[in-house]
Amino acid sequence: MFSRKRPEKLALNTNAPVTKPRSTDAPHSPLASELTRLLGPQKVLSGLGERLNYRYDAILVGETPLCVVLPESTQDVALAVKAAKAAGVPIVGRGAASGLSGGAAPLKESLVISFTRMTRLEIFPERREARAQAGVVTLAVSEAARPHGLVYPPDPASFRTSTIGGNLGENAGGPMCFKYGVSGDYVRAMQFVDVDGEVHELRRDAYDLAGLMIGSEGTLGFITEATLRLTPPPRFTRTLMSHFPEVGQAAEAVSQAIAAGAVPAKLEFMDKACTNAVEDYLHIGLPREAEAVLLVDTDGEDLATVEEELALVESACLAHGGTVRRAADDTESAALWRARRSISPALGRIRPQRMNEDIVVPRSVLAEVVREIRALGEASGFHLVQFGHIGDGNLHPNILFDPRRESAEQVHELAYQVALVALRHGGVLSGEHGIGAMKRSFMRDALDSVTLEALWNVKRALDSQERLNPGKVLPGDADLPHQDTHAHP
Amino acid sequence: MFSRKRPEKLALNTNAPVTKPRSTDAPHSPLASELTRLLGPQKVLSGLGERLNYRYDAILVGETPLCVVLPESTQDVALAVKAAKAAGVPIVGRGAASGLSGGAAPLKESLVISFTRMTRLEIFPERREARAQAGVVTLAVSEAARPHGLVYPPDPASFRTSTIGGNLGENAGGPMCFKYGVSGDYVRAMQFVDVDGEVHELRRDAYDLAGLMIGSEGTLGFITEATLRLTPPPRFTRTLMSHFPEVGQAAEAVSQAIAAGAVPAKLEFMDKACTNAVEDYLHIGLPREAEAVLLVDTDGEDLATVEEELALVESACLAHGGTVRRAADDTESAALWRARRSISPALGRIRPQRMNEDIVVPRSVLAEVVREIRALGEASGFHLVQFGHIGDGNLHPNILFDPRRESAEQVHELAYQVALVALRHGGVLSGEHGIGAMKRSFMRDALDSVTLEALWNVKRALDSQERLNPGKVLPGDADLPHQDTHAHP
Repeated sequence: MFSRKRPEKLALNTNAPVTKPRSTDAPHSPLASELTRLLGPQKVLSGLGERLNYRYDAILVGETPLCVVLPESTQDVALAVKAAKAAGVPIVGRGAASGLSGGAAPLKESLVISFTRMTRLEIFPERREARAQAGVVTLAVSEAARPHGLVYPPDPASFRTSTIGGNLGENAGGPMCFKYGVSGDYVRAMQFVDVDGEVHELRRDAYDLAGLMIGSEGTLGFITEATLRLTPPPRFTRTLMSHFPEVGQAAEAVSQAIAAGAVPAKLEFMDKACTNAVEDYLHIGLPREAEAVLLVDTDGEDLATVEEELALVESACLAHGGTVRRAADDTESAALWRARRSISPALGRIRPQRMNEDIVVPRSVLAEVVREIRALGEASGFHLVQFGHIGDGNLHPNILFDPRRESAEQVHELAYQVALVALRHGGVLSGEHGIGAMKRSFMRDALDSVTLEALWNVKRALDSQERLNPGKVLPGDADLPHQDTHAHP
Repeated sequence: MFSRKRPEKLALNTNAPVTKPRSTDAPHSPLASELTRLLGPQKVLSGLGERLNYRYDAILVGETPLCVVLPESTQDVALAVKAAKAAGVPIVGRGAASGLSGGAAPLKESLVISFTRMTRLEIFPERREARAQAGVVTLAVSEAARPHGLVYPPDPASFRTSTIGGNLGENAGGPMCFKYGVSGDYVRAMQFVDVDGEVHELRRDAYDLAGLMIGSEGTLGFITEATLRLTPPPRFTRTLMSHFPEVGQAAEAVSQAIAAGAVPAKLEFMDKACTNAVEDYLHIGLPREAEAVLLVDTDGEDLATVEEELALVESACLAHGGTVRRAADDTESAALWRARRSISPALGRIRPQRMNEDIVVPRSVLAEVVREIRALGEASGFHLVQFGHIGDGNLHPNILFDPRRESAEQVHELAYQVALVALRHGGVLSGEHGIGAMKRSFMRDALDSVTLEALWNVKRALDSQERLNPGKVLPGDADLPHQDTHAHP
């Protein structure tokens, strides 16, 4: 059984200058020396200045690693894991560190394994498969596959920088995931290195250990290679934008369109605050008074079907009080999507930092959830905007803040209240960003204690000493000793 | 580490009359009395005559259960599991018992939980989901969804009798799985009862415990309900049959068609022995001299695309020496598929019993694998035919035998040799039937000892006493005490 307690405080990544690193280890730890001996100096970073760069991901600043290795092969990974085991040092895997839940930020003094040099990528057109090492950049898979008439559909927003290993560790999604599924749906086989440094080759049969690795954020082992399913890209894409006086109307329009047979490739939602932020930035005439803006793509092999699906969406929007604008051509479609793509820079102008939530709720309660979260934002005094992938109810309430004036602890408390709204309405904590450190304590509210116990049993079965990415995903009985000590770096 | 040993002998289901049941328990065990008290007499079977019916699945005769419960709710399941725990009795879950690997046959004197009364089914068209209890017959999901313009694609051959719980337990496939995926790909959420009788509600986030349950054959817990993803049925289907002088030509034709952009909905293969068995049965003019017959469906929303995909398959077949016959209409298509659908009755006329293997090999080695397995069959003296789902290389070598004249042990030995051929060529043991009891000992050849250890660690994490379906999936250090004692019921 787990005790219910308030969420832990964690240091948000505020991009503040580092004045006084807290790490007290010698620049060349015994582990660094051993790894240098095993792998050569080119694969080991042991200087403090280098190690400081490996404390954070896109949301969280953690502890300075004891040492960083940059393996070039699975064998390098295995050697590094064995050395860390011998030294009794925890291990944290790291892709491009673009994650939004703190998954790659060390919470204890650790060995960080950075996979960015493991970039071997092979395409097998006759099997419609790619074999990618963990450090391959997500977009590179589609770029290599496209000459063969194939693509890798998962499209997390970070796909120009994020890596396959990181995507699988977090089971990343993206706008296309309503129609095309999340990263894990594309994994046919994988290689992983376990806590003892042993190498496993897994297909997805018998007990699905590969499936268990996906989304486990490096807490059960390190995915070193994956065999990914590829698909032909759609031949045709059509786009519309629709705006509504009420959020509920937008949600109902989406439900009606889907029930009528449309499976949009992308189905994005922006609330009023988000739309206004983008309009302030772009000045393209977005409807400032609308409570909900939808951006919809349909795609497929056959133009008539693609247009028919878009017509179903259009009818449903009109029937629920929406105002619809169809893109006449690709140029107009790109212009409409520019609004969605500009959310990040638009929000960056309002406050220097933001915490990006990732809840998923049933579409039938979306309007109520959006309303409740907006009220929480207004009561808190923080600037809060909401957008997300409305097809599967994946909502991203973003709390904007200025770390020089506003308290990271209050941001985290508001994020917790947002998570509770989702859970109260039958939702879950994460659609595509993972649990990481940020939502770890919320798991006590999300899962029954018996299920948490079962997950802990699985964790301990594969990492009995809790040396793999400690402090992530599962809330612990024994919390980390020093995770609160560096809340404001 | 696991020692390498020869496969265990197991009693094949030979449909032989039971003359002397070996069970020595009293007709009303203390567990049966307790379950009757908890659940009422209508949900408990304790008489020997009734219990004998729950010893077997479609391939294996196991041990007579100590008691059988027929729960009508998750709460009933939880009570039964708690009672079995208190009594220290192993538990075996059972759907329609149409499985082909022995998954539902008890190997120890056990409580059998038969899920056939748990048949609640709800369709949610606006979410494209079904919520099905474990005992819902697979086909019933599509039948209930079809009025809403939706279907549940997984189509194991047994889908008129098999259940959702059994399908998920074995992660069943079917001809459509090359294009549409296996049962587990359609699970959005599930409820399961663990070894302690606790009820868990799982979405597929954080650690994918739901994914771990899928394919675990009731060795980690009992799936009581699942939320299944539904899709619109294809509007158009087109069919062709092609035959080839060599198996390799058929395999290469399939690879070329797929590389060119065709994703057939079904892609079935029959070898010469299988084709002749069907022709002996149907007399419809199948090509007796052909080494390989392919049956191909393409399907989709748009007729032109569906026909274009079929044309790609046709060109590829012709380019590799195939003779092609396209079905002109649905009637002709049904006539061609009649050959495939008649394999079972056709084989039943040759020998009364068969063991149905389920290997998966890369298509590039299919010709060699088929040749080697045919040679093994010829050397063994058994009648062996081969057919399967060639799209994903899932081959079903069937060993036909007469249990009155031929040794079940020799059948099992040949099945083992067949499995070794698959493994030597980079294949796996099971595409859709599961590992069960039949292929459990082969797992030592299929997986590295470190991976087997990891799977055992996961098993023990969720069932530390090994009380859930003992003797299935994972080969044990301590084999079951009496599994060899009833080899010939």
